[in-house]
Amino acid sequence: MLPELNDLNSFRQALSGAPGPDDDAAQGAAERNGQLTKPPGALGRLEDLAIWYAGWRQDARPQITAPQVIVFAGNHGVTAQGVSAFPPEVTVQMVANFEHGGAAINQLAKAAGATMDVHALNLDVPTTDFTTGPALSEDELLQALQTGWSSVNPNADLLVVGEMGIGNTTPAAAIACALFGGEASDWTGRGTGVDDAGLANKTRVVAEGVSLHAGTGDGLEILRRLGGREIAAMAGAIAAARALRIPVILDGFICSAAAACLAETVKGALDHTVAGHQSAEGAHGAVLAKLGKEPLLNLGLRLGEGSGGALAINILKSAVACHSGMATFAEAGVSDG
Amino acid sequence: MLPELNDLNSFRQALSGAPGPDDDAAQGAAERNGQLTKPPGALGRLEDLAIWYAGWRQDARPQITAPQVIVFAGNHGVTAQGVSAFPPEVTVQMVANFEHGGAAINQLAKAAGATMDVHALNLDVPTTDFTTGPALSEDELLQALQTGWSSVNPNADLLVVGEMGIGNTTPAAAIACALFGGEASDWTGRGTGVDDAGLANKTRVVAEGVSLHAGTGDGLEILRRLGGREIAAMAGAIAAARALRIPVILDGFICSAAAACLAETVKGALDHTVAGHQSAEGAHGAVLAKLGKEPLLNLGLRLGEGSGGALAINILKSAVACHSGMATFAEAGVSDG
Repeated sequence: MLPELNDLNSFRQALSGAPGPDDDAAQGAAERNGQLTKPPGALGRLEDLAIWYAGWRQDARPQITAPQVIVFAGNHGVTAQGVSAFPPEVTVQMVANFEHGGAAINQLAKAAGATMDVHALNLDVPTTDFTTGPALSEDELLQALQTGWSSVNPNADLLVVGEMGIGNTTPAAAIACALFGGEASDWTGRGTGVDDAGLANKTRVVAEGVSLHAGTGDGLEILRRLGGREIAAMAGAIAAARALRIPVILDGFICSAAAACLAETVKGALDHTVAGHQSAEGAHGAVLAKLGKEPLLNLGLRLGEGSGGALAINILKSAVACHSGMATFAEAGVSDG
Repeated sequence: MLPELNDLNSFRQALSGAPGPDDDAAQGAAERNGQLTKPPGALGRLEDLAIWYAGWRQDARPQITAPQVIVFAGNHGVTAQGVSAFPPEVTVQMVANFEHGGAAINQLAKAAGATMDVHALNLDVPTTDFTTGPALSEDELLQALQTGWSSVNPNADLLVVGEMGIGNTTPAAAIACALFGGEASDWTGRGTGVDDAGLANKTRVVAEGVSLHAGTGDGLEILRRLGGREIAAMAGAIAAARALRIPVILDGFICSAAAACLAETVKGALDHTVAGHQSAEGAHGAVLAKLGKEPLLNLGLRLGEGSGGALAINILKSAVACHSGMATFAEAGVSDG
């Protein structure tokens, strides 16, 4: 059961009191893995993934039958500063596209056998431009976290969270810079496709926001000051999944920035997550390195929506299918080396 | 329709006379790709894959509904020299495991929605130890090529070929060394897990075989002298798929060595293929580089069986699902940047 979120501190308490993996189940899975009809280690990362998944699911021989993809959408006041190649009305247009099944994430979720939910968060009320003040009030942050927190299906056995929000590589870059240090230009990229002048402008905007808000509090406070509703909702959903023992596949740059806010609030808060892919958005690799996550895929995606995470569902399903479906040497009568 | 293979020269003729992609279909797919509801290029390699697939299938908006996995098995006289960590009887044991559904490839094919066929090639007649003479006679090579050639389902829309053959990283390394030059040690690795002494022995065996057979003929002749039945069958199936306009996902080191024999017989013979993954078998990356192929996955697999190729089916299916299933900007009423 999920604890209730009454205020931001109850969210912090839920994070720090969240369960860890079941070591017995992971140990049982590791023993089974050693008996399967293949040379030791020959399935590479698929073996590690299956054992990791078994631990979180408290089942040495688990199945993945109910993956869930959730896409959160939000709008950003900082778009007034011209940080995106697309106009902000595209956010609501794309939400309609998600609802009608026409976006990339619809096809990817379907191909992965996942259900898909869409939550649009107050699209007609953009966040405050973070160069002028905190993007969200405490109440607004709590509401966005709650949207994510309550959106996770307790019967799901794998979660991917994605986002849509014109301009949201800018808050993601600002979050990464505030949490991990360095220069604004270390964390900014071309997003959906800004030109050189656009990138320079975006870098200036990120630097201004970081200058105003960095060092003011923990990861959750940085999320409030520099983030956005869809980013906070992703964080809420990732945290809820942990409480429900549902493993999470992280998507790209924005999802990883949301996740980083959790990891910088409570150490180990992302132990139930793997990185689905490395995005072509320049700084994503650096964020993953800070989180200590090795991406499963690196195919040049830079779409968001949960696309890279959804694509990686197939990898995890295949890993678990091998682990739980293969015969042992004894069962198959195969000589064990 | 597939041409008949009466002799090795008719195989060479089939290779050199094979069809290319349909440029109109590829062009149509590229145009459609530019209209889909995403920033240009945001799906990265998925976009290139879908356009490439469309060209080979002669359909600007294709589907993947019938992938086929074929596993070929063969035995190798060179195992008498102690090149493998497993005894040769494991080949026939693993064929039984494939037939009973207990191997990794069974789970991976199922997870990818693919059919799976198994062909054991004269397991009780190992190839000749290539340090003493050609591994196969011309008739034996032709028979193995024919097995692969006739195993491809003409109604399949995607093919993965895999293999099982205790000791077969040794002929694969010898083929690579004979085709691409360098030292034997550049192409040998630990296979299913030989120790340092085993690796040194394997390298000596490869060097002896290459010394005896390199420079004697084209890729097909190298395949005959240093290969094996399952390796030749893979080459036959890859060539048949080309004649049938069925795109192929290459698997690991042994599959790539088989494919290299085709590419070194007729330039461009692998244009209908993509590399599914990069194996942890050390030299696989170098073989892929020689073939000009960038792997889709790099997850440390080194199992063979078609495992990495089958895992990549999901990537290609997802790419094509996005391409053919997404709405255009006009259809979705989304502002186009």
